[in-house]
Amino acid sequence: MSENWLQPPEWAWINAGEKEEFVHQWVKPLKDCSGQPDVILYGAPISRSSISVSGASQYPDEFRRLWKKFATYNLEEDVDLTSLVVGDAGDVSMHTTDIFLSHQRIEAATKYLVEQYPESITCMIGGDHSVTACAIRGIKQKYSQKSIGILQLDTHLDVRDPKELGPANGTPIRQLIDSQVVQGNHIVNVGLHGFYNAKSLIDYAKDHEIQMIPLKKARNKGLLNTIRESIVNLSRQVDRIYVTVDMDVLDIAFAPGVPASTTGGMTSAELFDILLEIGKHASVKHIDFVCLDPTKDSSVQETVKIGVHAWLQYLTGKAMKE
Amino acid sequence: MSENWLQPPEWAWINAGEKEEFVHQWVKPLKDCSGQPDVILYGAPISRSSISVSGASQYPDEFRRLWKKFATYNLEEDVDLTSLVVGDAGDVSMHTTDIFLSHQRIEAATKYLVEQYPESITCMIGGDHSVTACAIRGIKQKYSQKSIGILQLDTHLDVRDPKELGPANGTPIRQLIDSQVVQGNHIVNVGLHGFYNAKSLIDYAKDHEIQMIPLKKARNKGLLNTIRESIVNLSRQVDRIYVTVDMDVLDIAFAPGVPASTTGGMTSAELFDILLEIGKHASVKHIDFVCLDPTKDSSVQETVKIGVHAWLQYLTGKAMKE
Amino acid sequence: MSENWLQPPEWAWINAGEKEEFVHQWVKPLKDCSGQPDVILYGAPISRSSISVSGASQYPDEFRRLWKKFATYNLEEDVDLTSLVVGDAGDVSMHTTDIFLSHQRIEAATKYLVEQYPESITCMIGGDHSVTACAIRGIKQKYSQKSIGILQLDTHLDVRDPKELGPANGTPIRQLIDSQVVQGNHIVNVGLHGFYNAKSLIDYAKDHEIQMIPLKKARNKGLLNTIRESIVNLSRQVDRIYVTVDMDVLDIAFAPGVPASTTGGMTSAELFDILLEIGKHASVKHIDFVCLDPTKDSSVQETVKIGVHAWLQYLTGKAMKE
Amino acid sequence: MSENWLQPPEWAWINAGEKEEFVHQWVKPLKDCSGQPDVILYGAPISRSSISVSGASQYPDEFRRLWKKFATYNLEEDVDLTSLVVGDAGDVSMHTTDIFLSHQRIEAATKYLVEQYPESITCMIGGDHSVTACAIRGIKQKYSQKSIGILQLDTHLDVRDPKELGPANGTPIRQLIDSQVVQGNHIVNVGLHGFYNAKSLIDYAKDHEIQMIPLKKARNKGLLNTIRESIVNLSRQVDRIYVTVDMDVLDIAFAPGVPASTTGGMTSAELFDILLEIGKHASVKHIDFVCLDPTKDSSVQETVKIGVHAWLQYLTGKAMKE
Amino acid sequence: MSENWLQPPEWAWINAGEKEEFVHQWVKPLKDCSGQPDVILYGAPISRSSISVSGASQYPDEFRRLWKKFATYNLEEDVDLTSLVVGDAGDVSMHTTDIFLSHQRIEAATKYLVEQYPESITCMIGGDHSVTACAIRGIKQKYSQKSIGILQLDTHLDVRDPKELGPANGTPIRQLIDSQVVQGNHIVNVGLHGFYNAKSLIDYAKDHEIQMIPLKKARNKGLLNTIRESIVNLSRQVDRIYVTVDMDVLDIAFAPGVPASTTGGMTSAELFDILLEIGKHASVKHIDFVCLDPTKDSSVQETVKIGVHAWLQYLTGKAMKE
Amino acid sequence: MSENWLQPPEWAWINAGEKEEFVHQWVKPLKDCSGQPDVILYGAPISRSSISVSGASQYPDEFRRLWKKFATYNLEEDVDLTSLVVGDAGDVSMHTTDIFLSHQRIEAATKYLVEQYPESITCMIGGDHSVTACAIRGIKQKYSQKSIGILQLDTHLDVRDPKELGPANGTPIRQLIDSQVVQGNHIVNVGLHGFYNAKSLIDYAKDHEIQMIPLKKARNKGLLNTIRESIVNLSRQVDRIYVTVDMDVLDIAFAPGVPASTTGGMTSAELFDILLEIGKHASVKHIDFVCLDPTKDSSVQETVKIGVHAWLQYLTGKAMKE
Repeated sequence: MSENWLQPPEWAWINAGEKEEFVHQWVKPLKDCSGQPDVILYGAPISRSSISVSGASQYPDEFRRLWKKFATYNLEEDVDLTSLVVGDAGDVSMHTTDIFLSHQRIEAATKYLVEQYPESITCMIGGDHSVTACAIRGIKQKYSQKSIGILQLDTHLDVRDPKELGPANGTPIRQLIDSQVVQGNHIVNVGLHGFYNAKSLIDYAKDHEIQMIPLKKARNKGLLNTIRESIVNLSRQVDRIYVTVDMDVLDIAFAPGVPASTTGGMTSAELFDILLEIGKHASVKHIDFVCLDPTKDSSVQETVKIGVHAWLQYLTGKAMKE
Repeated sequence: MSENWLQPPEWAWINAGEKEEFVHQWVKPLKDCSGQPDVILYGAPISRSSISVSGASQYPDEFRRLWKKFATYNLEEDVDLTSLVVGDAGDVSMHTTDIFLSHQRIEAATKYLVEQYPESITCMIGGDHSVTACAIRGIKQKYSQKSIGILQLDTHLDVRDPKELGPANGTPIRQLIDSQVVQGNHIVNVGLHGFYNAKSLIDYAKDHEIQMIPLKKARNKGLLNTIRESIVNLSRQVDRIYVTVDMDVLDIAFAPGVPASTTGGMTSAELFDILLEIGKHASVKHIDFVCLDPTKDSSVQETVKIGVHAWLQYLTGKAMKE
Repeated sequence: MSENWLQPPEWAWINAGEKEEFVHQWVKPLKDCSGQPDVILYGAPISRSSISVSGASQYPDEFRRLWKKFATYNLEEDVDLTSLVVGDAGDVSMHTTDIFLSHQRIEAATKYLVEQYPESITCMIGGDHSVTACAIRGIKQKYSQKSIGILQLDTHLDVRDPKELGPANGTPIRQLIDSQVVQGNHIVNVGLHGFYNAKSLIDYAKDHEIQMIPLKKARNKGLLNTIRESIVNLSRQVDRIYVTVDMDVLDIAFAPGVPASTTGGMTSAELFDILLEIGKHASVKHIDFVCLDPTKDSSVQETVKIGVHAWLQYLTGKAMKE
Repeated sequence: MSENWLQPPEWAWINAGEKEEFVHQWVKPLKDCSGQPDVILYGAPISRSSISVSGASQYPDEFRRLWKKFATYNLEEDVDLTSLVVGDAGDVSMHTTDIFLSHQRIEAATKYLVEQYPESITCMIGGDHSVTACAIRGIKQKYSQKSIGILQLDTHLDVRDPKELGPANGTPIRQLIDSQVVQGNHIVNVGLHGFYNAKSLIDYAKDHEIQMIPLKKARNKGLLNTIRESIVNLSRQVDRIYVTVDMDVLDIAFAPGVPASTTGGMTSAELFDILLEIGKHASVKHIDFVCLDPTKDSSVQETVKIGVHAWLQYLTGKAMKE
Repeated sequence: MSENWLQPPEWAWINAGEKEEFVHQWVKPLKDCSGQPDVILYGAPISRSSISVSGASQYPDEFRRLWKKFATYNLEEDVDLTSLVVGDAGDVSMHTTDIFLSHQRIEAATKYLVEQYPESITCMIGGDHSVTACAIRGIKQKYSQKSIGILQLDTHLDVRDPKELGPANGTPIRQLIDSQVVQGNHIVNVGLHGFYNAKSLIDYAKDHEIQMIPLKKARNKGLLNTIRESIVNLSRQVDRIYVTVDMDVLDIAFAPGVPASTTGGMTSAELFDILLEIGKHASVKHIDFVCLDPTKDSSVQETVKIGVHAWLQYLTGKAMKE
Repeated sequence: MSENWLQPPEWAWINAGEKEEFVHQWVKPLKDCSGQPDVILYGAPISRSSISVSGASQYPDEFRRLWKKFATYNLEEDVDLTSLVVGDAGDVSMHTTDIFLSHQRIEAATKYLVEQYPESITCMIGGDHSVTACAIRGIKQKYSQKSIGILQLDTHLDVRDPKELGPANGTPIRQLIDSQVVQGNHIVNVGLHGFYNAKSLIDYAKDHEIQMIPLKKARNKGLLNTIRESIVNLSRQVDRIYVTVDMDVLDIAFAPGVPASTTGGMTSAELFDILLEIGKHASVKHIDFVCLDPTKDSSVQETVKIGVHAWLQYLTGKAMKE
């Protein structure tokens, strides 16, 4: 496979046009947007890279399908989202069995978007957490001289060893640190809790100066304060901030549809408040939502509903700022 | 169909006697109560008027069945509910396919109850939200010169256009406003949140001066304060207050058994506190609980349990006041 | 049946060795521990003594199986549990149909453990709540001149009449009071709420001076303060404290896998905080977790996960103290 | 409401174009078909006319969605369905609460189709069984001088009294007999079994000479022979045959997604054989499939899969004949 | 406990009157029947004697509740069941924890029924299979000089050792043989299959000359022939025949609501044919249905429906004979 | 990666010893068997190569776990399986993300087994259907001069193009044909049915002379005759026969736990008869069972139970022959 295919990835995409029934009423296919949309949405439907069985590859479709049932008006903030221009780029086309190729396509697709639409926010809908490493590598290709910071909402550190597991969903943060795409001290993880990270992983995190803010500590200090401070501090140290929301940060009582969700996590209300806050910060240039598996959701689809709601809260924050 | 049938609706009822196994141990069939009970319970088992498929028509039966498993003593408030006299009037008899006729029967039955038992509180167990418009019209027939105020706990405004949908469950509040049974400014909606009301509906609500108190705002101010103030203010403006509890005001994590429940809603604990408060206010003369669909509930029936508990909290408040 | 069988109950046990695949990596079978472990774990897998159908007998196995998926490092408290020595004694061997014999074996096994390992904390995994009475009788045999206090986390009082029900799961506290093993005023129940205890049971509790602290009152005062005070006060009155955690104290939204769980109960977060606190108190010598039925749990096993997490929180508190 | 609206029901339809994502790859929207297609498909998405709660209104959408996952080649018969021209007319537009109006639209839409496409077979996808009466009345308007026979595959007779229930799903056959649209002796019901028809209904059927062939009798004689003979006999007596397949004729072990399905019914294999046979008979001019409720189906959607497969078997029979 | 309590077990019963809502329309409470009913129904709601967790104790209630939804007319046989007189004796009252006492009550209750109603058929609704031993011992008390034969429809032999398990549901046949209530060669087991009986149990069965007719052999010979021959042969050897239907004889694809059901078992259609046949034989004086656990059934309750249907097939056979 | 790693794949295995709790009581770990066992069992736990999301990777564990609940005595055939020597080799160790590497390990492991144990039958438990191609390539390495025939029980042909999909589960048969490991005319597929194979795939099959025997045709001829003839014919043309059982050949009513199962498939009883027959043929040297996904199974695990039962039927046939 030549480097070549990383060029304009025309064929790497499922054409959004083919799936246009999925696009929300006020959202246009990216190809129909003129200029630079406020936000670009794209899907990365892969989860065969997940350590445990996961159907997160089906989330982009379910996300778009359920989204259509939400109105555009946020009553609590008195904000109408139609003031934002959002372009839907469709999904990156995944290979059936070649995980490495699929990952390269996500990287290439992200690079393409940040090159063509430098003024737009990108929002990637996963897929399992492996996609985050791909997206950030893609961004780094465009901004090779710039530093990238990560605000991670996650129950886990995701610093397991890619030498052992390959580019699996437990490894993205370590991939980025070990390949020097992102510095460990430019990563803030908020939401860690309980007994879900082995001691050796915590040692790795400490050695690489990842800032770990457990949920209990964040709650004591105020979750919004914690998020605000983390973004402000990061924005002083790096050129652009990437937010990655691993939906397993939610408590299992709220999010049955996340294979790795646990007890002791965030409530959905906490997550919604956080996303609203994040939306208000211009230094956040990229965001993703990962690890939500619609096939494991309850029959009333409460987890997918949280996923859509969280995304709309982010947009609300963004619209309030503007 | 003549006006006539709206008279003593003897035949409009499923005789409570036929279902007496459903009556809780300390509750008597209405026909066996002498005088004016403190509270009269009756069911309005219709949900084919629901926009989406709903089995809320089965709630009155499930409500009575599960209620039998609850004791009468409220430990937290040290109150024994047996001090109240509660009469069960059974269910209004619904027609299989004639929604309009069924709605008229609910109206007639309610009119009959408020005429015969003017000193009793009425509590209607729905059914979908369309039944609220019927009940209030029935009350208005008795109290045609009096003004009625509504305290609505709901995720939605329920002001969709009956010209388009007929008397469906998305329209009751608008039916009442458009037919001048209730004034828009005598309606307070507490619990609105998220992205579940289209902009046009909010515009209607503003035009008609419905007081919208989103959940976030109510929480900031204190939910109980909000409820208390709403009732006190309403009681200055109107002659009698009708409380309607659309169970979809609850967060979907607590109430899977409500077809329209969403993320971002109330917790069950919040709802219980509110109902206790409402029970303490003598100006509240009518209450209903609607839109709970037992067929969609989880296998442990958590939503129906919330429904019964909420009702008992209301009674507790009532017993505390007396 | 002679008294004799209460002697060294070699045959009364399922040998932990037979099930050693269930033992967590850092936990040894009791027989392989030298000296006095910090904590001894044992199972009492009986639930045919439950008033309603219950599969709580399967909890010890599920508990051990799921525990293996938890790490040993508590990130929020920065504590590594491997500093504790925990011995797993396996399960007490139950008879298929002779409930009385099974109960005697639990009593004998507990007596054996407290005699052989007087310096260890015992932790029993039920089974339904009937096992608590057996365990405390076993302890009392060893400490016949000492007084035992009980801190009970429970939605119910569990003082139904054994004369009527036999030694069922609704009766353990009354068994102990009526047989003068424990004094009523040495029992504190925290977490009572709602409409789940008949008036007559509350009267019994008042007559016997059981301290009832309903959940609402405990929350108003601060749950941790309430727990701390209860333990401190008890420790002034009794020689050793037994904590019994009936998992039905949890709200049904968090704990679908407890047959008797109700609305209006504790959140899992509240329970975790409480267990951490309890772990810090040296006066607590015994603890049990009962009434969790894995066969009724949701498909993502959220209740069993809470059960394991709660236990690890207790160990965390214990490790912090040391 | 004027007669007028029964004219070209342009507005009575959900335009198939709006939903064209649902059309199977080799099937064209009706409006894009030139001439007379072999088969015309249309949906009648109503189930609020059902006696029990039913979500059969969602079947047309689920049917089309799942159909896309089926290939066109019938391996067992060596037939490629693409040799047939099938046009999808979309769904008849239903009113939210006016059941009578919705029924009139189905009637008008069917009349329109048989007038415009007299050489095409019509296939209606319900909806509950009330839609069959509407469709046949629509056909009768076009063929008022012709006699129509019905082959009904059903567990029930569906001759409950419309005077009591209105045009509910238990009444369609009686509606047609009582209004003399169809003669009782032109109706053959195959598949009746068990204890699901009250004695009074059987008496009605006998009085009106409905031919009742219970499943056991049909099996003894050979199911295919029974079907073949029934069609041949009917075709001697009437001008056109309408086949109505109430999916509750299936055994509940195969069809959990039919609210009224029972034990003792047909296997799916039997139904498939029957549909293949029916497809071969030119005298069958109309067919419908009713009462399948996708919201009650198992998580693997076995009932909807049977529904699609049965329809393709019918087409296979049709293609074999040609 | 004295022998005495085995006398007229007035207090041993849940009065059928208390539960009269459960009695089917054409069935009278036994106390209201004059003379000797054709069939007497009674429940034995115990399953804490089950080796695995079972909720079969809830079957009598569910059976009666669902039965009300069945009509009385058997269409396939053209038989109206109202020609039979069936009396419902209610349920035997079970003790909460004393399994032995509960078993004695079943024995006493059965003895009482056969003494008072010697001309009636008794039909007992279990409960787990342990109840069969009790019932037959009760019958034997009345007919101590007579021999009883058993026709058992079962996947298992149920000859595990009561010395080891007590009177658990795996032991009833062995209890009866070892105590010489029934001779091994008077027992015919039809429906055995697969890998569900240990070799040692088969050896026991062979040693005691139990006639084992595996399902495959029975099918080869014809199931109805097998049943007919078994009954005819038995009736030559014994004075009265007791039929026990362990619902686990059904294949798990048809009967998910039986804890021990397996693959490779009977279809429901086969069971229905068999019950019809059994009903025709006057030598069968007693029948029971055991081990159906409604709490494990699918959400559409297919297994309970089979249970009721099977019972009605038996009655149909009985009515045909008369 | 060098050829080298294909040598003694010590490290390629999960040591069966580590999992020995999974081995059935009468089955030994392979390493503890002396000589050549009759049958060798090994797992290939991979399903990330599946086109749709699949948890078939968890089947080997569930298979072993549930197997322990089956006895060894086949009652219907009067055969005790303990007469066979079965060795469990454990599972081939899979890489987390490198599908190609995992596939190579399955190939190497199979080659190793057939080299070391040339007289044993191998039985592989998948995994998805991609593993069959690997196993046969491994066998071919040992028997490079010999021809291999395949008897495939499958709803699908599995001849999709590996050039497009890579070595996914829809491609194994085509991989083998295109690489000339197996000739098309040495493949017999029994069980094809319905509308689940695109026309183009059937054309491929015809071009390569795969023998397609649809289920309907096989049933008409007799399923056992068909199987017997297929094996006998194949054994005349090839040196050794490999049987691959794709569990999706079963009807979805019996096998909900197979992602691709469809309506119109085999009953479990048919599959059991077939496996018994296959077991009797000495020319069958290898067998596998694939595509069973325990995570999608019903709560009573009926599909896994069928999987175990089918395997035991195969062993029964084998034992009968000997």
